[in-house]
Formats: sequence, C-alpha cells, structure tokens
Amino acid sequence: MSNQLREILNPGSIAIVGASEKGRGGGFVSPLIDFGFEGPIYPVNPKYKEISGLACYPSVKDIPGNVDYVISSVPSTVALDLMRDCVEKGVKCVHYFTARFSETGRPEDAALEQEILKTAKQGGVRIIGPNCMGLYNPGAGISMNNGMPKESGRVGFSSQSGGVLMQMAGSSAQRGLRFSTAVSYGNAIDLNECDYLEHFADDPETDLILMYIEGIKDGRRFIPALRKATAEKPVVILKGGRSDAGTRATASHTASLAGSHRVFQSLIHSAGAVTVRDFDELVDMAVAFSFLPAHTSRNLGVMGGSGGSSVNAADLFAEAGLNVVPIPQDIRDTLKAEGIESYGWFNNPVDSSISTGDMGGTDRLVELMTDHDDFQTFISFAPGPRWDGKGRSDLDSIMEQSLHNKTDKPVIMLSGGSGGFSRMPLSEEMSELATQIRKQLLDDGVATFSTMTRAANALGKVIDFYDYRKQVAEFP
Amino acid sequence: MSNQLREILNPGSIAIVGASEKGRGGGFVSPLIDFGFEGPIYPVNPKYKEISGLACYPSVKDIPGNVDYVISSVPSTVALDLMRDCVEKGVKCVHYFTARFSETGRPEDAALEQEILKTAKQGGVRIIGPNCMGLYNPGAGISMNNGMPKESGRVGFSSQSGGVLMQMAGSSAQRGLRFSTAVSYGNAIDLNECDYLEHFADDPETDLILMYIEGIKDGRRFIPALRKATAEKPVVILKGGRSDAGTRATASHTASLAGSHRVFQSLIHSAGAVTVRDFDELVDMAVAFSFLPAHTSRNLGVMGGSGGSSVNAADLFAEAGLNVVPIPQDIRDTLKAEGIESYGWFNNPVDSSISTGDMGGTDRLVELMTDHDDFQTFISFAPGPRWDGKGRSDLDSIMEQSLHNKTDKPVIMLSGGSGGFSRMPLSEEMSELATQIRKQLLDDGVATFSTMTRAANALGKVIDFYDYRKQVAEFP
Repeated sequence: MSNQLREILNPGSIAIVGASEKGRGGGFVSPLIDFGFEGPIYPVNPKYKEISGLACYPSVKDIPGNVDYVISSVPSTVALDLMRDCVEKGVKCVHYFTARFSETGRPEDAALEQEILKTAKQGGVRIIGPNCMGLYNPGAGISMNNGMPKESGRVGFSSQSGGVLMQMAGSSAQRGLRFSTAVSYGNAIDLNECDYLEHFADDPETDLILMYIEGIKDGRRFIPALRKATAEKPVVILKGGRSDAGTRATASHTASLAGSHRVFQSLIHSAGAVTVRDFDELVDMAVAFSFLPAHTSRNLGVMGGSGGSSVNAADLFAEAGLNVVPIPQDIRDTLKAEGIESYGWFNNPVDSSISTGDMGGTDRLVELMTDHDDFQTFISFAPGPRWDGKGRSDLDSIMEQSLHNKTDKPVIMLSGGSGGFSRMPLSEEMSELATQIRKQLLDDGVATFSTMTRAANALGKVIDFYDYRKQVAEFP
Repeated sequence: MSNQLREILNPGSIAIVGASEKGRGGGFVSPLIDFGFEGPIYPVNPKYKEISGLACYPSVKDIPGNVDYVISSVPSTVALDLMRDCVEKGVKCVHYFTARFSETGRPEDAALEQEILKTAKQGGVRIIGPNCMGLYNPGAGISMNNGMPKESGRVGFSSQSGGVLMQMAGSSAQRGLRFSTAVSYGNAIDLNECDYLEHFADDPETDLILMYIEGIKDGRRFIPALRKATAEKPVVILKGGRSDAGTRATASHTASLAGSHRVFQSLIHSAGAVTVRDFDELVDMAVAFSFLPAHTSRNLGVMGGSGGSSVNAADLFAEAGLNVVPIPQDIRDTLKAEGIESYGWFNNPVDSSISTGDMGGTDRLVELMTDHDDFQTFISFAPGPRWDGKGRSDLDSIMEQSLHNKTDKPVIMLSGGSGGFSRMPLSEEMSELATQIRKQLLDDGVATFSTMTRAANALGKVIDFYDYRKQVAEFP
C-alpha cells in the first residue's frame, strides 16, 4: 500500500473536473501552474474550451493522455457519474473537493457516498476525501492554494480538515517549518488515517509526522501502524472530538464518529505518540522536534530573564518535568577565586538583574555554565532590540551576543518579549529590527517559542517522546 | 491597619533620597513630576542644589515641611542612617528601592536589614521593601516609571517583583486594563502581602485584586484575610516558587521561603482565590474578571470558526467545564419552516464553512441562538479585515457585523487570527485596520483573547470563582 500511496501522492498528470475561470474550481488549476507542476494539467468542463491558457475538455473520457489524479470540483449530484468516467479512463485516484455527503447527516447523501465508494472499489480507483482540500506536495509542484510556501521540507502532515492544513502551512512557515507532503482527507471513505500514517512512516523525505484526526476509521490497523511509525520518527496527534460537544462537531464536519477519547488517548500514548490540545501546540511540537536534537537533555541552564520572570521560568520548566540544575560548587569556587562578589548569590535561572551591581559577573557565570557538564540544554531570552542597554544596536552585534552563537549545546530561545509576558508593540524601527532578529534565528535553525510556558511544554514532550521510545525498546 | 495603609499609599509629600540627575535616583523624581503629583517633591542628595528644577536637600532632616513618604535610592551601607533620620523627621513610610539585603544570602546583609526594621518599629515608621520598585498610584500622580499608563482603573495589584509589576502595567494596558494602585514590595520585611491584600479588599476604588507572591510572610493572617477578600471581590494569585528550582530562585530574588506549594495551593483554593501559572494567564484573568459580568453563564454558543477550528473550540470549551449547548429542536424547526436546507446539519459551534452552500443560513441560525434562552454566553471570532469576504471593508461596516453589537448577552472575542492559530502577519493596510478593530473592541469593553485555549481557560475560571463563592455562602 505504501508504494501505491507514494504513486498517488506523486501523480504524473492531473485533471481538474469542474474547473472554471473563477472560484475554487479555477483555484485548483492556478496553483498547479504557479507551483510548476511538470506533468500535464487537464481542466475539464463542457462550458469552456480553454482555462488559464490550457485546453479544457468536456469530460475526463475526452482527455487524450493518461490521467493519474483527478480533482473533483463538481456538485455532489454528478459525483457518481464522474467516478464511472474515472473508472473507464483508468484514473488511479480521485480527490473529491466535492462535499455534501455523509457530513450533512441526511441518509440520501450518505448513501450516495457509499455508491461512489463501491464503484471506485470495483473499478480500482482510490479516493481522497470527499469533502476535503486534498494534496499539498510542494516538491512535486502540487498545492491547493497559491498562498502556500513553495519550498518543501521534512514534515509530513495528514489533516482531516483542509482549513487546518492551510492555516498550519502558513503558521508553521513563520516558524521555519516546511512540508514534505500534506494531505487534507475529509470524510476518508477510502484512503484513511492509516494509509497516510503508513506512507509518512516509510517516506524517506519525512522526518516528523503530524496528524489532525477527527475520527479513526480503522482502529485495529491504526494502533500497530502508529507503534511502528513512532519507532522510526516522532508522531504528533491533535484529536478533534475529545468531548461530547466536539464529537457532535466532527459529525457535521467530516461525518466522523469520535468514540471514547480516554481510550483513544491511552492507546496512542502507549503506542508512543505525542498528543496536543490545540493548533498552536501542534506548531510548537513541530518546531521542537524539527530544531532540537533527538535525546536532548533535561538538565537545563536558564538565562536572560530578571527576578520575577526567572522565578516563573524555574517553576514552569520544573513543572514540565525538566531539571533546572543548581549552580555546582566548582562554578561558585571559580567565581569566588576570580573576585566576583556575588559568587554565592547567583542561581539558575541566572537573574540578569543581579548583574547590575556586579558588572560582568553574570556573563562569566553563563560562560562557566555553557562549559560545564552539568548543563546540557539552555533556555535563553532571545536577543532583542534593547539587548545592549544603550538603545538600538545593529543586527550583527546583537546576534554575536546571542547564546546560540556561544555554545554548541542545544539552545531554546524565548522571543515573546522580556519577562514572560507576550511581546508588547515596538516602535517601527525597533519592530523592523525585531523581525530581522527573528528571521536570523530561523535561518540559524534555533527552536524559538513565544512564551516560557509553551517552550517548557514543547521541550518536556520532546524529551518524553525519546525517553519513552528508549524504554520501550529496552523492554524485554 | 487598612486606613493607615490607605494613607501610606496616598502620601501628601514625597522625598527621594539619593536622587540624581541621571539614572534610577533621578528616575524616581521625573515620573512624579510627569504624573503630576500634587504635593511637594523633595530630592535629597548632598551633591546637588537642584534636581529637575526642584530644590535639593542635603538630608531628610533638612527638608522644611512634613515628609510622608521617602523613596530610598541610597546604597545599603547608608540605609540604616537614613532610617534614623526618617524616625527623627517623623516620616510615615520609607520605600527602599535600595537592595542587597537578605536576598544576597550573606548573613551581614540580612542582619543589617533586621537592624533597619528594628529602628523603624521603634520609631513608628513603616517600610515598603526593601529591594523593590515601590508604588504606582496613577490617580495620586505616583509612578516608578515614566512609561506607565497615567489613567487609573479598578485593578489593585501587589507584586513581590518590580519587573513583573512594570511589565504587567504595560501588557495589561494593551488589553484595556488600568490600575487603582499597584505596589512592588520586594523582601517585605515590614508591610507584607497581608497588608496589601487587606487594603485592596477594603479599597472602594478596587474591584479586582491581583497578587504576585514569592513567599508568604504570615500564613495565619493571610488565609483568613484572603477568605474575607474573596467574599468581596475576585482575587487572582500567581505564586512564584512552586518547585524546588523556583524556591531557590525566590530566595535569591526576594529572600522568600516559598514553602510547600501543594499545601499553599489547597489553602488558597479553599479560601476561594483563583490561581494562575504564568504572567499571560494573570493578564487573561484580569481581562475576564474586568469585562465579564459576575455569574456569567456556562451555556455557550460558539460561532465564526470553520470546520476544524469549530471542532477544536468545542473540545477546548468543554474541557474547561463549559457547556457547548446542542442546537435545540425548536431552532431547527424554525429553520426548516423558513426553508433553510441545512436545518438538520448545523451545529454549535456554528461552522461558518457550512453556510457556503446555504446562503444566509448561518446568519439566521446565529440570530435565533442569540435570542434563545438556552444560550447565555457567546464566543465569537473577532471581526477581521477579511470578514466580509469581499476584501477590505471599512471599520464601521466591520464593527456593525461584530456579534457584541447584535446581542446584549456577554460575548467573548477571539482575536488571534482565524482558525485558532496565532495571528499571521498582515499587509500594512490590513494590519492598520486590524489595530483599529482591536482598539474598538477595547473601547466597547469586550473581553478579547488571543487564542481559544486562553479564552476557554479564563472563562472557566471566572465562572468557577463565582460558583464556588455562591456555594460557600450557602453552606450552613
């Protein structure tokens, strides 16, 4: 199956049925052109001779060449006829953007959906959807939207919601993430979460798997597939329909039966996957898994905050199961021998306000900590426009002071303003500099989070993932 | 005590000892002038004749008039001499910005602090601090910093950290909050959390009490005071030093012994207070308590999101103990009678993507829900620049469509971009319009949150606070 899905997600030719000059039908044609899809693109619509400079055909059967992949943008009333044509034409897969099937709750819509599935199975055609945005494969030049990033990356994403997929691509691009392939698969009447999971687990271009799941279609297949996948690469799952209210919502969205969430949660945890509660956390985990090394240590040095924010940082990282290591005696001894007065006062987190009366003391402490074996991972407030205390300084001198340029050990940056509060508006000049700093951190591949709470959560979960996998592997 | 503290926090005259033209010493003079403090301001420093146009005196004893309140900016080495002068002068209160006392961990610094306290007690002088930023009382024209808001409001805040207080004033101003009085009180050797709590509980200008506490100085007094305070107004507490690492940090920050957090947490919950984990949550709770009516209902209507974000909204609000009410049959009957095809498909949350094929259907549903008794509180995605689907529209037409202008029931707005993802960067024009929208929502007094998760958490805790208080009051 995995090889078959690989072919399906990398089609050689694409037809868009129900294509038009405007609207979503046209919307599927234009991104293929814009993203540089190399195979033939066949708009299909009896009303047009040409769409976006491409010859337009009255039906799939009239297309001269082979058609691997069909995007259906026709109303549900003619969706079964389309499948019959696709069977006849020998199409490999139909992506039904077409909606209004079982998700409406009307028995006749659900029956039609089943009829389409039956026809497809008999004819050997696979289905993505219906009721979904379909495929985003930037490396192959396939996108459902012009606005999405054109660069490909190492994250695979299967999402039962198209809106979530598109927002995710935008949000995570800002955080430096790019996708190998992402699929929005809606009602999942044929290809389902198990197929996508198995594909991404095998895919050499994917290092990390994200899933947004509203309903599990095949639990007996899913859990073993998940166990196998997590042995290879991290899998992060956002489940929709954890509550009764959420389950009612999944029913009308993708006709999904969400089932007991407690059972599901236990099963996926025991299979080694990471779960998240909301979309921001999904992006956070993708950032953490992408930019931190496997087996990052729990032994933290925390620096760059002042009094109250240092205290809160210590609590938040400790509560996430991390070890905010006390300053070891040999570091205190060195500081004392060097005549640094606050040698006994300093702590981890390093409170930057202590240095006010003890010039250079915290800088030296940070140096000793980065060199010390007790500290293996660092949390630092990201350098900001006000970093040097003398007003605006230039990007180079700011980045030179950034902790990730002073140590080879993993560094996590907090970019949400100082003190653990969300960033306040800056002047235009400052804001421009802050943007440059963020961009430089992204280019340098630094894991960056907007708040201490989110950083602590993501780091704790990354370490838990690898620890759990190691322990399971060691189990007799 | 409460009356005495009221006088202390509203002094008639202020001396700044260790004032200078530059730096923090001068920093305390200039905000008093800038904020329009009406009583006499006396800079004290033997090196100057005049500071910022004000006569400068060699010592407190040389000041011609009464001095109610002294801000000490001198080094700790002369802090005891200053207290002796203040006793002689008949000063009511000394705020020691001066630091390097017990928080350094050195026995001689702790002994000096105790000597100062002893001298003050014998002489009838009260102490704020040491090691703190002191008083922010915008109504009385008192601030520790020029950058803070000049308007006063209804939030009282006692904070053991000055940095937290100043960041809080800035962050919460963006969210529409203003303070009656806020005090940063550092090592709390004399006036402590109990005094500030009792003051704010009695203060007719304070509707809501926020506290950042690193160590409880007087637990036997604190818990009954807290119980009394929560019977009058909401109290929200952020505790520093919840973990071992955090406790080490509170010791070097404000010499606080944090104690067992589990015991503390149980005691303050049983006294009816709300606890939060980080600074953003502290601001969220202040927004929720300030802008939502007491006894807001758990029965929610949720609207404005599309498929996946509606599902996630349902889960997040349900998980916060809120009731995402199913659409009642009489509403479905009305929709059916009016010929709206999706009458049976719609759900709560109202999925805006369903309306694409059923024009006007969701608008009518929202109208019926706001009029229906089953729905008492609404969650809505804030109107955005793209709200009308036809590109940019003007502020007035956008605000007209905003749910809070269509119902008198409480409405909570989500402003963090659509779909529950953190807001993505907008074009300059769009960004300008988004800023205007946010400002209008603030002016209209709408509780606004950046994510669904944060809104759900804040709303759940506000309702829990009033429910708990009601149940305690009904207890025989």
